Amino acid sequence: MALSEFDLIRRYFSDLTPLRDDVALGIGDDCALLDVPEGMELAVSIDTLVAGVHFLADVEPETLGHKALAVNLSDLAAMGAEPAWVTLALALPEVNEVWLEAFSRGFAALASRAGVSLVGGDTTRGPLTLTLQVHGFVPRGSALRRDGAQPGDRICVSGRLGDAALGLRLLQGEANLSEPERSQLIDRLQRPQPRLALGQALRGLASAAIDISDGLLADLGHILQASGVGARLQLARLPLSDAVRRTADWDLPLAGGDDYELCFTLPPAELSRLWPLSEQLGLAVSEIGEITAAPGLVCEQADATIWRPSAKGYDHFASHE
Amino acid sequence: MALSEFDLIRRYFSDLTPLRDDVALGIGDDCALLDVPEGMELAVSIDTLVAGVHFLADVEPETLGHKALAVNLSDLAAMGAEPAWVTLALALPEVNEVWLEAFSRGFAALASRAGVSLVGGDTTRGPLTLTLQVHGFVPRGSALRRDGAQPGDRICVSGRLGDAALGLRLLQGEANLSEPERSQLIDRLQRPQPRLALGQALRGLASAAIDISDGLLADLGHILQASGVGARLQLARLPLSDAVRRTADWDLPLAGGDDYELCFTLPPAELSRLWPLSEQLGLAVSEIGEITAAPGLVCEQADATIWRPSAKGYDHFASHE
Repeated sequence: MALSEFDLIRRYFSDLTPLRDDVALGIGDDCALLDVPEGMELAVSIDTLVAGVHFLADVEPETLGHKALAVNLSDLAAMGAEPAWVTLALALPEVNEVWLEAFSRGFAALASRAGVSLVGGDTTRGPLTLTLQVHGFVPRGSALRRDGAQPGDRICVSGRLGDAALGLRLLQGEANLSEPERSQLIDRLQRPQPRLALGQALRGLASAAIDISDGLLADLGHILQASGVGARLQLARLPLSDAVRRTADWDLPLAGGDDYELCFTLPPAELSRLWPLSEQLGLAVSEIGEITAAPGLVCEQADATIWRPSAKGYDHFASHE
Repeated sequence: MALSEFDLIRRYFSDLTPLRDDVALGIGDDCALLDVPEGMELAVSIDTLVAGVHFLADVEPETLGHKALAVNLSDLAAMGAEPAWVTLALALPEVNEVWLEAFSRGFAALASRAGVSLVGGDTTRGPLTLTLQVHGFVPRGSALRRDGAQPGDRICVSGRLGDAALGLRLLQGEANLSEPERSQLIDRLQRPQPRLALGQALRGLASAAIDISDGLLADLGHILQASGVGARLQLARLPLSDAVRRTADWDLPLAGGDDYELCFTLPPAELSRLWPLSEQLGLAVSEIGEITAAPGLVCEQADATIWRPSAKGYDHFASHE
């Protein structure tokens, strides 16, 4: 029996995500009705994930449920916003209840940890495609934007870069590693952790921020373009796992994408506030370069020679599979 | 040359929709930053349209741009909300600039008329799929919901029912009519007009409301279910065009879908306020039946016999093409 749009969202999602006082009306009417607290700006971001383009069609549905929400929450993290609500539009080739149950479990587990309530959805027949919109709050005027980087600011990143890209190569049989490294790297690809606490802690501290979805060069490039500045990176300072370091392939950390770490800039005087914060959050933060008045992005190697990129991140119209 | 996500949304959409003071930051960062006025609830709705399921793949892109936004604005109309912002996620098989230019023109023309600003988007490669989220405001506590219908309330609809479904049959060669009727009916299918002014005017007047996207029986059914009531419809009172009337096929107005008219209920004492409103808005409103305490939906024909439906609206997992 075919299930209607209404039934699908109700059946698999409606009781799984947290109830919030600011949801006056959730799933089940023409619109959800939501209350934004006074003094807060609403931060919203919409993203689509297409099977065969953004994820392998045979990915575990629970993993996909996690990742679909994680990559969207990462956009809130990059603005310094506190997550509140999410909407989910699902196009599915068929109603597969086993698949839906597992997908909703992965989705709901992260939603619960992040305190995000699913407030609306749409399910329809079509090629497997997920579109999510996340909604969060940020005190008016305090969001982390891309356009505030100043010459002299230091460039920092959270976590490690390139693990997800190496994980993809492992899944595709283009690289080979034994356990436990193999599982750890694939996990970094499939179960990114949005840096929500770091993003919120960077309000009033960072001058600009972005999340690394398309690769460091591409995403830092957006900050440089929006801020009208350039940058000089010290490649020796990039935070790398042993496995990524052993490949000696800079494309992984610089252009690999899917890391969902934060890249941000801040005045050098603020660095002393940054290190205790990193410790408190239990999340490594590395200083990897400096903003320059001269435009362009220069990557300096340990021997002071300049590295030239062979790729500039991930273009959405070139499949990465 | 491939165009990035960033370029596509910027190039085709960013200057076309109205600037609004309540948009602190629009397209081009990780999130948009938006201000909801004090005293207002935020009404949101997300919907996906898939080629071959919700629209014919060869539809004129300008028409599709209009319709994609119109059907979403119709959800705001059904809540009595005033439209403010929209986000757009586009999956496209290829970058076709002629298609994008025409699509964005249709989209932007309606956005401008409705005062809606495009504040975010995502473009990606994939089977042609459009997901939109609309955002509007409604004074706190005054939204039109599905769950307020009371026994004795009268059931009304705006406009005419069944034109869009007959337009689809014409396009598919399952019906034949000469001009100008043919063009008018196809236009009703392809260029629905969201009943925004009516929806807002019904605040404080209607006890429940919904927009008719899946057919009167299915959508009125949602009101009945949410309100825990039943209904008796007088089929002779359904507002029909001559062309629909000549088919003598009740499936068109009752189960055809895609009308995007409003169906609403109100206490009989409020009818005297409704008729001048209809006149003022230049939009026909018809009283078609009554809410009953007994559950179920009864369709009474002119001779007082009961009509039995052969279909119950449009299921999202059964293609209507």
